[in-house]
Amino acid sequence: MLTRKQANEAQQRALAYLDRAEVVLSKAEKKNISVADFGLSDLEHQGAQILTFFNTERISAKVIVLFPWQILPEHWHPALREDVGKEEIFRVRWGELYLYVPGEPVPHPRAKVPEEEKNNFTVWHEIIMGPGNQYIVPPRTVHWFQAGPEGVVIDDYSSTARDLQDGFTNPRVIRETRVVDG
Amino acid sequence: MLTRKQANEAQQRALAYLDRAEVVLSKAEKKNISVADFGLSDLEHQGAQILTFFNTERISAKVIVLFPWQILPEHWHPALREDVGKEEIFRVRWGELYLYVPGEPVPHPRAKVPEEEKNNFTVWHEIIMGPGNQYIVPPRTVHWFQAGPEGVVIDDYSSTARDLQDGFTNPRVIRETRVVDG
Repeated sequence: MLTRKQANEAQQRALAYLDRAEVVLSKAEKKNISVADFGLSDLEHQGAQILTFFNTERISAKVIVLFPWQILPEHWHPALREDVGKEEIFRVRWGELYLYVPGEPVPHPRAKVPEEEKNNFTVWHEIIMGPGNQYIVPPRTVHWFQAGPEGVVIDDYSSTARDLQDGFTNPRVIRETRVVDG
Repeated sequence: MLTRKQANEAQQRALAYLDRAEVVLSKAEKKNISVADFGLSDLEHQGAQILTFFNTERISAKVIVLFPWQILPEHWHPALREDVGKEEIFRVRWGELYLYVPGEPVPHPRAKVPEEEKNNFTVWHEIIMGPGNQYIVPPRTVHWFQAGPEGVVIDDYSSTARDLQDGFTNPRVIRETRVVDG
């Protein structure tokens, strides 16, 4: 749950990052940044600011802004009817990203996860990404990521996004963000 | 057909446009810009400079640079086996683009097509696009486009690209560019 004030502030802050990363937006898009707290009501530590360019029945493109050390919680894109699961390519435009996928865990990860949340993060194979780096996450692959100290702006290319169907490791996650007056 | 010198010059010129448009590239990508003359040996009027970020079995992303008034010739993306044809979304990052698709022709198009080439352009419904504008071209839809006076840098999102299978209105087009010494 977010207050309207929190959501508005996050939108404005995200706009400043998009501007810094030289992402060119239409006027309508600038008003259309969605702020996701994943139902955890702790946007500073876990959340994301997302601008969807388009989402057709085949392909989708978004830009994701994470503030410094903000985490997008561990999740996967399940198979749904004729869809084998969303394929997703991350490409960093600005800042630093720590991406975690299945594989050999790193002994000393860059990520900083709050102690009480560690159980909700199960994959620790680390990919450190800077501007111009990209990484393909196959369908149904568990993954999560965190911004580095300056925050990060990511181009997110994928097959059709059906965000509300995503699976999350943390049972407390609710993908739809509730915004309340205040 | 292009000489090696022409291809190199076009790559360098395209890099300057990508830089101006703030497209963030890896070192490897900077060496990997493909120059297409569509077999017409007239790059100044008809051609494109293309950088492919990735092309998986489901999705693809490229950046296309067109120099001032350069035309990407009229073509379509046919159905191939299980693929109903490539779906493509253009999004302008920098400069101006004149995109032509089927529909009501404009009486006074912005595009400038050499007189002797006019027969090879059959659709004249015009979409004028600037930075932050995007347009979805459905599968199998005939389309072509031309840069405005400053040139243009376009994000090109699509389902899987199979460029060599594209259909072209101009029977002289050869999609694979031949580069010769010189």
